[in-house]
Amino acid sequence: MTTRLAMLIAAAVAAGSAQAGMDEDARGVGLYGDLWRPDPVHEYWDPGAYHRPETEAVEGVFTGAECVECHADVTPGIVNGWRDSRHAAPGDGAEPVTCAACHGADHRALRFPTPTDCGACHGEQHEQMLDERRYGFPSHALAMERAVDTKHFVDKPKPEVTACLACHSVATKCDSCHTRHRFDAAEARRPEACLTCHSGPPHPDDETYFDSAHGRRYLAEGGTWDWSKPLVKGNYPVPSCAYCHMREGRHQVADKAIWKFGLRDVNPRTAENTVKRRRWIAVCTDCHGESESVAWLRALDNERKRAWRLLDEAEDLLRDLRADDLLYPAAGERPPYPVDWWERFWPRARIGFHEGQASAFYNVSGIERRYFEMWYFESLGAYKAAAHGADAQVAAGHADLRRALDDIRREAEALRELTAAERAAGKRVDPAPLWRAGAYTDLNRERN
Amino acid sequence: MTTRLAMLIAAAVAAGSAQAGMDEDARGVGLYGDLWRPDPVHEYWDPGAYHRPETEAVEGVFTGAECVECHADVTPGIVNGWRDSRHAAPGDGAEPVTCAACHGADHRALRFPTPTDCGACHGEQHEQMLDERRYGFPSHALAMERAVDTKHFVDKPKPEVTACLACHSVATKCDSCHTRHRFDAAEARRPEACLTCHSGPPHPDDETYFDSAHGRRYLAEGGTWDWSKPLVKGNYPVPSCAYCHMREGRHQVADKAIWKFGLRDVNPRTAENTVKRRRWIAVCTDCHGESESVAWLRALDNERKRAWRLLDEAEDLLRDLRADDLLYPAAGERPPYPVDWWERFWPRARIGFHEGQASAFYNVSGIERRYFEMWYFESLGAYKAAAHGADAQVAAGHADLRRALDDIRREAEALRELTAAERAAGKRVDPAPLWRAGAYTDLNRERN
Amino acid sequence: MTTRLAMLIAAAVAAGSAQAGMDEDARGVGLYGDLWRPDPVHEYWDPGAYHRPETEAVEGVFTGAECVECHADVTPGIVNGWRDSRHAAPGDGAEPVTCAACHGADHRALRFPTPTDCGACHGEQHEQMLDERRYGFPSHALAMERAVDTKHFVDKPKPEVTACLACHSVATKCDSCHTRHRFDAAEARRPEACLTCHSGPPHPDDETYFDSAHGRRYLAEGGTWDWSKPLVKGNYPVPSCAYCHMREGRHQVADKAIWKFGLRDVNPRTAENTVKRRRWIAVCTDCHGESESVAWLRALDNERKRAWRLLDEAEDLLRDLRADDLLYPAAGERPPYPVDWWERFWPRARIGFHEGQASAFYNVSGIERRYFEMWYFESLGAYKAAAHGADAQVAAGHADLRRALDDIRREAEALRELTAAERAAGKRVDPAPLWRAGAYTDLNRERN
Repeated sequence: MTTRLAMLIAAAVAAGSAQAGMDEDARGVGLYGDLWRPDPVHEYWDPGAYHRPETEAVEGVFTGAECVECHADVTPGIVNGWRDSRHAAPGDGAEPVTCAACHGADHRALRFPTPTDCGACHGEQHEQMLDERRYGFPSHALAMERAVDTKHFVDKPKPEVTACLACHSVATKCDSCHTRHRFDAAEARRPEACLTCHSGPPHPDDETYFDSAHGRRYLAEGGTWDWSKPLVKGNYPVPSCAYCHMREGRHQVADKAIWKFGLRDVNPRTAENTVKRRRWIAVCTDCHGESESVAWLRALDNERKRAWRLLDEAEDLLRDLRADDLLYPAAGERPPYPVDWWERFWPRARIGFHEGQASAFYNVSGIERRYFEMWYFESLGAYKAAAHGADAQVAAGHADLRRALDDIRREAEALRELTAAERAAGKRVDPAPLWRAGAYTDLNRERN
Repeated sequence: MTTRLAMLIAAAVAAGSAQAGMDEDARGVGLYGDLWRPDPVHEYWDPGAYHRPETEAVEGVFTGAECVECHADVTPGIVNGWRDSRHAAPGDGAEPVTCAACHGADHRALRFPTPTDCGACHGEQHEQMLDERRYGFPSHALAMERAVDTKHFVDKPKPEVTACLACHSVATKCDSCHTRHRFDAAEARRPEACLTCHSGPPHPDDETYFDSAHGRRYLAEGGTWDWSKPLVKGNYPVPSCAYCHMREGRHQVADKAIWKFGLRDVNPRTAENTVKRRRWIAVCTDCHGESESVAWLRALDNERKRAWRLLDEAEDLLRDLRADDLLYPAAGERPPYPVDWWERFWPRARIGFHEGQASAFYNVSGIERRYFEMWYFESLGAYKAAAHGADAQVAAGHADLRRALDDIRREAEALRELTAAERAAGKRVDPAPLWRAGAYTDLNRERN
Repeated sequence: MTTRLAMLIAAAVAAGSAQAGMDEDARGVGLYGDLWRPDPVHEYWDPGAYHRPETEAVEGVFTGAECVECHADVTPGIVNGWRDSRHAAPGDGAEPVTCAACHGADHRALRFPTPTDCGACHGEQHEQMLDERRYGFPSHALAMERAVDTKHFVDKPKPEVTACLACHSVATKCDSCHTRHRFDAAEARRPEACLTCHSGPPHPDDETYFDSAHGRRYLAEGGTWDWSKPLVKGNYPVPSCAYCHMREGRHQVADKAIWKFGLRDVNPRTAENTVKRRRWIAVCTDCHGESESVAWLRALDNERKRAWRLLDEAEDLLRDLRADDLLYPAAGERPPYPVDWWERFWPRARIGFHEGQASAFYNVSGIERRYFEMWYFESLGAYKAAAHGADAQVAAGHADLRRALDDIRREAEALRELTAAERAAGKRVDPAPLWRAGAYTDLNRERN
């Protein structure tokens, strides 16, 4: 045994210079896949699309016992994880689920499991996740395709969209939420399972949950609770993410979402939302009185109504500037998305989400970018704070929204004055050469 | 039993459309209560002022045992909390304190307990909290009334002041710090009990404590300490919030405060402060040498002295601008607080805390707002960092203070140049119509 | 005993007004020590340089048992710590290491131990730390001297550099990482041991580790792991800081650093870095496949390459402005570092790290400061995020880098226009009087 082990390790070391298995000339997946290239790490975020087995790996076809024997020395952490899992000891006389079940047995043709692989055994959960697609985006099930199929994905600087896919991979692999190789539901019930992705702008779920009374109590005492219990009322003093968003462990988080992540100004009282409101209140009343639950949901409605009033005012300011041709660069002076080649001839400036402006970080005027950030950062932050009961952050978020509106109002006035002065002096510059072909545009698109 | 339970649940479900019990046309409390309206959630933040029993609730007068029997199914979390509490098993042969003691027994006349209710049994703690009023504001005891009795409360946009009251409710209910319904002192001794409110600007106690050596050790090891022990020296390796601020559990945090939350430039060596300094050092010397304790307090003095030198310089710049009539809008060109109607005739611009400018977020010039934020955010953040021993944040805070002073200095110069140019060109605009009656002002006041 | 104890306590209380032992007129250490004065707390951050025994302390020469007898009442926390330490019970029949071994026995000549003191017994660890000096700065071993021996240390406002030394004291005392007086390796293996210093800009190790999948799992479960185990593979489900950076507990963190804290644009494939890359990959492959480990390191390379392209573009913009004499103040118009007196005659503007601009917070033009912050805050934050696997922060960091480049580009254009207009109007102002002798410069240097 020792000899064989040593041989395998030697082989592994010899392979030290091996590159990632992904094809060197791999192209992106999705609608615009011809226009961008994946980074090496994408292989691990979307294994179904990019993973290629390592042809220089140790050769052989192994049983689970053989895998474990060798990897207990090479990578003991994952073997320990598996040994602690139900896969190793399913009970009821069932056979253990060993390495080959998920990775294959041929060491030069190993794969990383996709949700479909996991769904072969865990069909109910997989079905539930896929069911989210009915509710549209944002949802976990559509996270990857709606990311790479957006036009700005092709256009945005690579480091940002690459990093975005790390979390959007929740749609293409199950270990975004579940620890490999232990896969214990007790882990996934805790907030940390969700927060590797759900933190920071534009979705500070981490920061707002932990600042709430719920989160504080979890932080102080959660380490001592018995997380093997199911997520039903009476089992936990306060809810974790999954308690409210994955009712009784259901792998579908979309059927309770009224405000759509805070992205849209919705009517919270549509027929569909009235049904969702009942689901929402039903969660709260596991612990709270119904009147109190209703009052908090109305507080969220009020927060959104007030936020959108500010956003609408900012958007109106921008539309007025556009109408008076004061945006710089204007549509037609900046590059259209590569995929919107016809906009070279019929340029169209989009302002705000409803006109289809899903991203305005780049190649837009400063004031448009400021508005985009007001919507995507300040407003979404305030929304999450209100939804999670982090009131100090609601206050801070609305102060920030006001500051953004102030900035935009002042900038709009300055633009009016500046342009008037420039026109009077006859020295208005055509920005098109700078934006459409300059260093900035080139930099954005380079190596996508 | 089962039948009756089912009936009660059915009744509760039927009441699903019930609104909060608060009167629909409730007016605010406090000096300016006629000028603003509470949000529905206020009922739960200041129950003494706003709570009205639910008239559509299940009818009946119940014993504690009956309450528990039903609510163990309806809301088991709070029943579990109560069962773990000393209220359920006070020991020494005393009778349990059951639901009716705090909420009443008539299910259509239930109340939420106020500090006075809790004080009926916990008189010592209640007296201690009320004693804070002697020391003025900031203090817990005055948190609610000093919030709603400020003039800017009426004037500021609703989402911000509403959210502020969530924490200022510490004066009007005891479960801001204590978990309902367990009320275990072991919980309140831990920092998380305080930090639902004490986080974020302008009071980053959370962020600064946890970045200190004290906080780091708590984070690593605090979960294993025996929190049932009283807060006296030798019982804990590092202090929590309550250890230093609520000496031996005393519910009075005001008698050690020298720097008044960082809000004021105080003389740290007044007779009163000399007494407070001894109390402060006495806490530190539970664990540290006296010389070291003195050195750290002097480090805080130095930090404050240096911060105030920067704030004073910024304030001087603003006063000079005011003297030269360069602020835009100036006092008289913007709306006075609604309650200061006489300032329509005798307008008075306030710059800085000592002139009574407790809030300058709104309806002020950009440079005044920048100064207000420098004082309220950057300076207070640096103070908390110095007081809690989070030195990296002291450095960052002072870098931010310098940046703010830079911004203000540059803006002041620009204002001087711009105004000179405008005056030379004879085109100085009167801002009064914009600020006093424009969309901005209306937006602020709407629906208060 | 009780009588004697009471006497000692009385004596301690009488000494209540004692100042820190540090000489009142102490001068700074290091190259520029004549130009700045330490704050009182420096005594505890660099005891070898500043500590002076308290001459008013209780008099006497005490055995360890006597120290403990008295201090168990006076400061029980540290006595408890010591009792839990291996110092108190080294095993194998060895004598306990008592108070006097580290502090001395004469109560009026007590000292605080330096790394050399600790190294007398823990020679291997001390040697390892000193060995970091071979790799230059940043490193723990050079943290203090490279801080106080920089020219900007003398020039920067005191509150910032004072606070910086709190953490840079890692070179001058061992309890920056180890809790006094327990000194348990089990504590130092946990991330919190490192994060009192390694948090916030410019080194958000805290924020990026805890946002990674590694950190999240530590947060959820780390409290239950057996930290007495050594840091070798298989012992922990995820790595802590020390696992990767202090391989098997070695007190030398510099031999794996390729990117030098993100400060420099390095060639990651030099002969030296190729060796370091193997060390890096060797750590990852404790748990991960080699191809995946290589892919992640390449993702870091890509992140850096993309960040430096943005930084280079910003630096070029500044160099162009300098070439055209558009920076305000220019070199020669602002004060040189006090120690660079010859630059009064041969002024030299430095732009960027490679020209020796290690700090450009102060006495520089706004656009230079913006670039400095882009490099020191945005870029370093993105680097740490990429290195620790916090992808959401990589995305945010690069959005911030782009925003900074936008700001700089717009400001550069505005400077060109403004200066052209000023020159045309013949009213270009000489900034030298303002910057070289004005309030700003005085404020910076005051009381250093």
